[in-house]
Amino acid sequence: MSLLTLLTDFGTSDAYVSIMKGVILTRCPEAVIVDISHEVPPGNVHTAGHVLSDAWRFFPEGTVHTIVVDPGVGSDRRILAAEVAGHFFLAPDNGVLSGVFDQAVPERVVMVENEEFYLKPTSQTFHGRDIFAPVAAAIAGGLGGEGLLKLGPPTDSWIHLPRANAVTGPGGAIAGEVTHVDRFGNIITNISGDDLPREMETSIGRHVIRGRQTSYVAGQSDEVIALIGSTGHLELSINHGSAAEFLGVTIGDQVGVIPKVEGGDA
Amino acid sequence: MSLLTLLTDFGTSDAYVSIMKGVILTRCPEAVIVDISHEVPPGNVHTAGHVLSDAWRFFPEGTVHTIVVDPGVGSDRRILAAEVAGHFFLAPDNGVLSGVFDQAVPERVVMVENEEFYLKPTSQTFHGRDIFAPVAAAIAGGLGGEGLLKLGPPTDSWIHLPRANAVTGPGGAIAGEVTHVDRFGNIITNISGDDLPREMETSIGRHVIRGRQTSYVAGQSDEVIALIGSTGHLELSINHGSAAEFLGVTIGDQVGVIPKVEGGDA
Amino acid sequence: MSLLTLLTDFGTSDAYVSIMKGVILTRCPEAVIVDISHEVPPGNVHTAGHVLSDAWRFFPEGTVHTIVVDPGVGSDRRILAAEVAGHFFLAPDNGVLSGVFDQAVPERVVMVENEEFYLKPTSQTFHGRDIFAPVAAAIAGGLGGEGLLKLGPPTDSWIHLPRANAVTGPGGAIAGEVTHVDRFGNIITNISGDDLPREMETSIGRHVIRGRQTSYVAGQSDEVIALIGSTGHLELSINHGSAAEFLGVTIGDQVGVIPKVEGGDA
Repeated sequence: MSLLTLLTDFGTSDAYVSIMKGVILTRCPEAVIVDISHEVPPGNVHTAGHVLSDAWRFFPEGTVHTIVVDPGVGSDRRILAAEVAGHFFLAPDNGVLSGVFDQAVPERVVMVENEEFYLKPTSQTFHGRDIFAPVAAAIAGGLGGEGLLKLGPPTDSWIHLPRANAVTGPGGAIAGEVTHVDRFGNIITNISGDDLPREMETSIGRHVIRGRQTSYVAGQSDEVIALIGSTGHLELSINHGSAAEFLGVTIGDQVGVIPKVEGGDA
Repeated sequence: MSLLTLLTDFGTSDAYVSIMKGVILTRCPEAVIVDISHEVPPGNVHTAGHVLSDAWRFFPEGTVHTIVVDPGVGSDRRILAAEVAGHFFLAPDNGVLSGVFDQAVPERVVMVENEEFYLKPTSQTFHGRDIFAPVAAAIAGGLGGEGLLKLGPPTDSWIHLPRANAVTGPGGAIAGEVTHVDRFGNIITNISGDDLPREMETSIGRHVIRGRQTSYVAGQSDEVIALIGSTGHLELSINHGSAAEFLGVTIGDQVGVIPKVEGGDA
Repeated sequence: MSLLTLLTDFGTSDAYVSIMKGVILTRCPEAVIVDISHEVPPGNVHTAGHVLSDAWRFFPEGTVHTIVVDPGVGSDRRILAAEVAGHFFLAPDNGVLSGVFDQAVPERVVMVENEEFYLKPTSQTFHGRDIFAPVAAAIAGGLGGEGLLKLGPPTDSWIHLPRANAVTGPGGAIAGEVTHVDRFGNIITNISGDDLPREMETSIGRHVIRGRQTSYVAGQSDEVIALIGSTGHLELSINHGSAAEFLGVTIGDQVGVIPKVEGGDA
């Protein structure tokens, strides 16, 4: 199987995504292409990286993940092809792969430079069509392992966006931040579920959420609850509503957790 | 062919849908996956059931339809797998399959309980990834017929949402309601085209629509027309506009039809 | 490979698109279906034609492109099947293929009339399901070449929307117009990059853009730049912003280019 995923900020109103698919299927007719998302806000490398970090591990080894969230298209920014845990990644060198590289050490990273694989003529405005799609098709068609070196020379430096790590302070207090808000208005944080005390209190803005639940349905209507979400991180949620809207929270806002016995005076 | 469809309320901005596809393709590499929709309003079982009822019969027998509109995820709500008219359905037991069961008697319904098929660890927040996707892949991979029993014990009770049936009264007057408004603003009702008199008048809110047309183009600009839509039900429509917006109509609103000879004093 | 593309104004909230896919996969189980877009504004033949003109050439020969942007469904408008440069097109005869026919002379055009291929019963409200899908499946399944004649008689007349050509006047001034605004707010015109002078000035509304760049990143923040876009036409763009919003420009607005040496008094 030649499985490829696409993650872009192209939207689905224009022809851009389908043009990439046409190029891939022309070069690699047996390709199976899965959309991760095309609704990344234009140029938002942070969101793209977050969505990618959540998704890639659930695909089979050998999958080629192509990310075209590329505000620097046409500049001298580099394009990277990487092999990580048996998966392949193709993306602009703008930090969008940082989350993946945090999760697993890349086995090989090359700078894509071999124009032999590009569509000709190669525009300076649509590398998704002219470079990413045909190179992804080449990788999916069997350019694995040492083959990546056919795309360009190896490199051991790239743009790495610092991860905002949650910090555990004296007394077990944890300081973290909001990393994502999903379609349901669930507030996802960078605080790992493994670090959470059993008895706890979460504070965000002026709000305090007591305790911790195991599922979304635990709360009353309009009650914000804390739980460990599907990515293993602390999440704040309202059953049948948007916690992000209710609390007025956005990405980057601070979140604190303190150990607290319910009803106790800890 | 291993054909699967997905119907969720996940939207396409987050990674959720693609994660389900990754799990399915990992377990069943030959899977062909078709999106029915991911734009169901969050938790809206009614809309999901309506969209599903319209779509499933147009897929080939053997198709596995997976529905994850699941406001009760993490509660003790059950998960059902059903075989209906040669198709397979996998959904939470929340009534979303009611429309399908109204259209055809299920041959077999089981409660999905066999954790052997689940992704491990199994979260309480994302059953789409951890239960629905791997179980759907198992069914698509050949768990048909008696095989469904491998997923869990059979059951003959489940949540069934009452269908709002249109009622024909004395004199042939029909009382029904709006069941769906589509992207074009067409108003779809629960009044079957088979029950409609040839000469008729439709009333909705304060509006009366005379007669019945055979296609959307029959009306003048801004004229609301009545016709039998593609699902065989009475539909109200404006050529080149939204009838729902024009009439201020929403799902659940009442619709009446009376037999009426045009120009006559019936 | 049986590769098909779909371009509609159906949106992705309703079941309509998936129903077409179900019909296609029932009739042609080996079909690979790629969405071009389903976000064409309802009934907007102009936009559909533009998106199609951009996309089709990037698919392999033999691809069957089905376009259902069809405000005349149910009227006596004809349905056309065409073979163009080794590709197949199936669309209502409403001008949506004009751009394709401008790019390459059709080898064969037939009027689709053979009801043998239709879904029965055939509605007057959803030809996408009842005519376009099964006929597309038949073409994809091997009805190429002379085979198109099985669908209906050949024709050499059809609705052709006049192309708004850019005009080059005395002194090399070019008068053109806006043909599309994409998701990023890039303003795409009908002025071919081949016709542009090296040193130039672009005027749109009250705004004048000096010079010409080669990529989106060339401009300062909030600076509108002119460049040749990925379709080979003059495009106006703002790095990290929407040029269309900034300039208040919509489709059909006039754009002028005059040769101008930067800093000179030409």
